[in-house]
Amino acid sequence: MLSAQLSKFGRPEDAIELVELPDPGEPGPGEVVVDSELFPINPADILNLEGNYGAVPPGLPMIPGAEGVGHVAKLGAGVTHVKAGDRVLLPGPGTWRERIKAPAGSVFALPGRVDPRQLAMLRVNPPTADLMLHDFVAAHAGNWVIQNAANSGVGHCLIRLARQAGMKSVNVVRREELLAPLRAFGADVVLLDGPELDVRVRATIGDGVLPLAIDAVGGSATLRLARCLSDGGTVVNYGLLSGEPCMIDARETVFRNVSLRGFWLRRWFMETPREQIATRYRELLSKVADGTLSVEVEAVYPVRRIKEAVAHAARPGRSGKILVSFTPA
Amino acid sequence: MLSAQLSKFGRPEDAIELVELPDPGEPGPGEVVVDSELFPINPADILNLEGNYGAVPPGLPMIPGAEGVGHVAKLGAGVTHVKAGDRVLLPGPGTWRERIKAPAGSVFALPGRVDPRQLAMLRVNPPTADLMLHDFVAAHAGNWVIQNAANSGVGHCLIRLARQAGMKSVNVVRREELLAPLRAFGADVVLLDGPELDVRVRATIGDGVLPLAIDAVGGSATLRLARCLSDGGTVVNYGLLSGEPCMIDARETVFRNVSLRGFWLRRWFMETPREQIATRYRELLSKVADGTLSVEVEAVYPVRRIKEAVAHAARPGRSGKILVSFTPA
Repeated sequence: MLSAQLSKFGRPEDAIELVELPDPGEPGPGEVVVDSELFPINPADILNLEGNYGAVPPGLPMIPGAEGVGHVAKLGAGVTHVKAGDRVLLPGPGTWRERIKAPAGSVFALPGRVDPRQLAMLRVNPPTADLMLHDFVAAHAGNWVIQNAANSGVGHCLIRLARQAGMKSVNVVRREELLAPLRAFGADVVLLDGPELDVRVRATIGDGVLPLAIDAVGGSATLRLARCLSDGGTVVNYGLLSGEPCMIDARETVFRNVSLRGFWLRRWFMETPREQIATRYRELLSKVADGTLSVEVEAVYPVRRIKEAVAHAARPGRSGKILVSFTPA
Repeated sequence: MLSAQLSKFGRPEDAIELVELPDPGEPGPGEVVVDSELFPINPADILNLEGNYGAVPPGLPMIPGAEGVGHVAKLGAGVTHVKAGDRVLLPGPGTWRERIKAPAGSVFALPGRVDPRQLAMLRVNPPTADLMLHDFVAAHAGNWVIQNAANSGVGHCLIRLARQAGMKSVNVVRREELLAPLRAFGADVVLLDGPELDVRVRATIGDGVLPLAIDAVGGSATLRLARCLSDGGTVVNYGLLSGEPCMIDARETVFRNVSLRGFWLRRWFMETPREQIATRYRELLSKVADGTLSVEVEAVYPVRRIKEAVAHAARPGRSGKILVSFTPA
């Protein structure tokens, strides 16, 4: 079977290879074999290929990938909660491969009529946005939240989740052509990043309460978000897009009681009881199914062109996610 | 009466003036008049003279000063809990003046045999160190705490308070000649700031638990402290010595769950019930009285030379606090 493989960190398109690996074989009792259909390339995957992901680099070689969607191909003895042909989330990590054998408890049948591209992106971006929106600062209706990289997958999820929670979002982007599409998508306010962001935000939201800033960028972008916050507000940093350390003026921390915290989805997986995780995903799945959560897709590449796909995903200036497909176009 | 006055922000020695102000006159019922004896010049005072203190600059002209010590000179009708001649903390803010009239409830008699220079420094540095040590991270005996600017007044207090709580301190300084004196003072570990601070800290403390970093400096110094922390640790920033924004690598925030928070003593005063504040000061006063808390003094200037005093206090490379005295030398 085909599999993507990371043997040496480097430029994403150099680091990723397509290799032929042994088929996982027949499922044992209580196992399933899943045929992969689609997976997205997330910013975390790019960092991983570059050797910049996690506190400690993973051992190599490894098969990348945290999510994706596929179909149950084979059932081991005693597996009754799914049947052959059911669409399921790919058991991960290591989803960038054609076929995966896993404990049956790690899959569940997805509804048939939901766009598989959106399902392929369910596991990472929606809970990231949802947890950052709710778990650091109480999400009171009427409050504002500000985020940068607002055009990202997480950004799109956050806009819709904030709206559903009765909150309003200030969305910061770096390209003028994103202003109108994000407004059309449901963003309450969209502003270009740059000097005096805080002045422009306050001119727009007046004395609105803005206790939460979501930062995917780092560097001076963190500092600009922090200035926009109400006193006592929290910046939640979850991304390393600039490659620069997060900056916060000591005036914000000391005199305005602004805090900086970090979010990593993997920590949530490790620290949260299984049933709580399942509940959260059921809620998020229903929001994908009813169209509340929807992430733009810029291109779908066949797996044979995975080097092009990761190069595309690593380029700035995209307007949607890059997906990779195992099914012939 | 003589008073220091700030009429225009600028270089500290230019910004401060000595002026003649009207005497506050006789105390009304329930008031006292206090004659000032000594006050320290804190880093916050220097920031204030420069116009860099607080979220919003104060209205000018103003009389600076947050603390000091003096004697009760006159009692208004009905005041019985202090008597003329009692040494008291100066009622503040605005302590840099020769004589102060204030509600009697704002003063209490200090023990007679305690060094007045240490009492003059009771209000700001000791609670700053104490609150940062205890109120952000549970202070478990055996744990480590790391701080920079360890030779400051707060730094000295933190070393002794940590030791008394059964914790051990890593103390980061920028000058080699401070290593031995700080060790003699009770610092468990003293290291020079610079490259690979985290490697040197770990080489010294092994797998010791280090959940708390105290940062007075900002800039890349914050980043270096953050790297030393155990996973999930907290940096508490309380100072702006570098004038640079605090930096924290997104790897610390995202992958290691390191947080950055701010501390401002004034916020504690504003948010804490009066009786709780009084209790904390009684405890800290007993630690000053028994010698646990003791801050080095580099020089005492007569008030007539206050411009020299603030210039001295603003210079880097001091080895103790600068005090100003109203009593003839």
